[in-house]
Amino acid sequence: MSAEFNDEQISMQHGSGGQATRRLVDGLFAAALSNDVLDAMGDAAILSAGGLRLAMTTDTFVVSPHTFPGGSIGSLAVHGTVNDLAVSGAEPIGLTAGFVLEAGLEVEQLREQVRAMSDAAREAGVSVIAGDTKVVENGRADGMYINTAGVGLVREEARLDPALVQPGDAVLVSGPIGDHGIAIMIARDEIDIESDLGSDSRSVLPLTRALIDTLGSSIRWMRDATRGGVATVLNELAESSRAGVIVEEAAVPLRDEVRGACELLGLDPLHVANEGQFIAVVDGSRADEALDALGGVSGGESACRIGTITEEHRGRVIGQTEFGGKRVIDVLVGDPLPRIC
Amino acid sequence: MSAEFNDEQISMQHGSGGQATRRLVDGLFAAALSNDVLDAMGDAAILSAGGLRLAMTTDTFVVSPHTFPGGSIGSLAVHGTVNDLAVSGAEPIGLTAGFVLEAGLEVEQLREQVRAMSDAAREAGVSVIAGDTKVVENGRADGMYINTAGVGLVREEARLDPALVQPGDAVLVSGPIGDHGIAIMIARDEIDIESDLGSDSRSVLPLTRALIDTLGSSIRWMRDATRGGVATVLNELAESSRAGVIVEEAAVPLRDEVRGACELLGLDPLHVANEGQFIAVVDGSRADEALDALGGVSGGESACRIGTITEEHRGRVIGQTEFGGKRVIDVLVGDPLPRIC
Repeated sequence: MSAEFNDEQISMQHGSGGQATRRLVDGLFAAALSNDVLDAMGDAAILSAGGLRLAMTTDTFVVSPHTFPGGSIGSLAVHGTVNDLAVSGAEPIGLTAGFVLEAGLEVEQLREQVRAMSDAAREAGVSVIAGDTKVVENGRADGMYINTAGVGLVREEARLDPALVQPGDAVLVSGPIGDHGIAIMIARDEIDIESDLGSDSRSVLPLTRALIDTLGSSIRWMRDATRGGVATVLNELAESSRAGVIVEEAAVPLRDEVRGACELLGLDPLHVANEGQFIAVVDGSRADEALDALGGVSGGESACRIGTITEEHRGRVIGQTEFGGKRVIDVLVGDPLPRIC
Repeated sequence: MSAEFNDEQISMQHGSGGQATRRLVDGLFAAALSNDVLDAMGDAAILSAGGLRLAMTTDTFVVSPHTFPGGSIGSLAVHGTVNDLAVSGAEPIGLTAGFVLEAGLEVEQLREQVRAMSDAAREAGVSVIAGDTKVVENGRADGMYINTAGVGLVREEARLDPALVQPGDAVLVSGPIGDHGIAIMIARDEIDIESDLGSDSRSVLPLTRALIDTLGSSIRWMRDATRGGVATVLNELAESSRAGVIVEEAAVPLRDEVRGACELLGLDPLHVANEGQFIAVVDGSRADEALDALGGVSGGESACRIGTITEEHRGRVIGQTEFGGKRVIDVLVGDPLPRIC
């Protein structure tokens, strides 16, 4: 199915979440580890056990720096995995945490991140139930890397499947995009702008919960737009559903700082990483209800409709400007934002 | 309960699996992340969901070198997590894999390890159902680190709990100990001996399965003896069960090469890591049946009884020599074998 992966060396762009990551995953990992569940390639794998539908997911966090406005590697590690479960229609059962620590790390820095994990977990209503710690020599890591894996119980009403996506469905976003990526770049002094912009890192569980409570099986598909941004997840949707996706560019919610920073850097905000926003495709006739449900939850007030599923442009994502212009919105190529999560 | 963790910097011994790891886990991780399930501190966490008992576990692998006689980081990453589920009395449902890759890594090396994971998973009868890949700059890792997490369904008959351990119970080991640790040291040229010793890295699932099939709830407790070795897991047992553990030192199965290497290096084989051996405590009156069950499975032929649970020496592990001598067997202090898994 997928092309063989013929790159000779791993480079930073293989970690971008964009095109190079996709080639690596499809051409090497999936090729070797192929099985029905992995091949479905959702944000979390869904499997049946003892009559239940379980969601299972993993994410490793290598973000640099470890703390940034609006979050830290510890809170991000919890939110990232909680969100993968949430957009799978699941209620988290438990998280695990695996640490790689660099010898010489100040214990105070570790303590700060474990506390951040604890706070984020409590706030999201989940528990870290198992852990593991390894230590490598000084110079063999960057302070710490944190893996979290999570398991959740998929809600009965949730029937999320790209194959159910159909023309006329509405494409919603939970809030303004690009905050995380730009906040990290500011924290790294990679852009010289005055701003109090913070990462959007948060648990989206209250939002997905409200959406499922209200719409049930009228939600077709959800995905959090992390590495590679909204453009990358919409392309994955277009490809897996074989539908066309039209994005009304003017409708995409964007803070002024993010718009400005993207213009300065020549970045498309649709490629910038988010850590607290997700895309939902819902039955078009229920889009207003969905937005009401999201708007009724703290943090969901800016949720809005950004597009529509179409018969045309199958397998592609098309941006439509206010003036009737069109462009192909492609996945991220290269890695302008390394170690963003 | 546990002492606060006051070390200022992380050092290699915090990754040993022995005393320093224990202080870090109890004094920092458990203190911050405390919850009922984590506090139970088993090899895998056991939790209830939808009427089922699930086991969940995580392990990160940083072993150096990546390949060694008898295994590699890829196969180890599968076996380690499968074994944590197995000794919890569970049948694996699925594994996740999280990779940290160092920019500049030869793709062929990655491919080799992903294939090793695939082979190990197929052999163990499990699937890798979700994954994640991050890339860090050259010099910020050591080729690759692999995290695996696993979820399993705990078998109805399995009622493993250190609180059930009682005087008269038999302590069994599944086979010769110390092979993994010594094989790694040989691969690193840290010992100059001629030997074709290989790591014992393997799935112990066929063995735990046979034991549960035969003994059911007469098995009190199982644990795989990885970092920190048999001595460390027996000390954890003694502490959590508040029982005494007597080890007949002459009964501990040991290959000549391992005995010789330990003598050369001044190591206690009971402190050396294993990746395919586990300890089981069973009702003393059914010890022979248990050994027959293990002996009937390929790879279980050397299983034997090495000790007994006693009223005396509560909370301690006591070694008994052939000549009637006694010594306290303590947990590993320091880290003579860094990055062993």
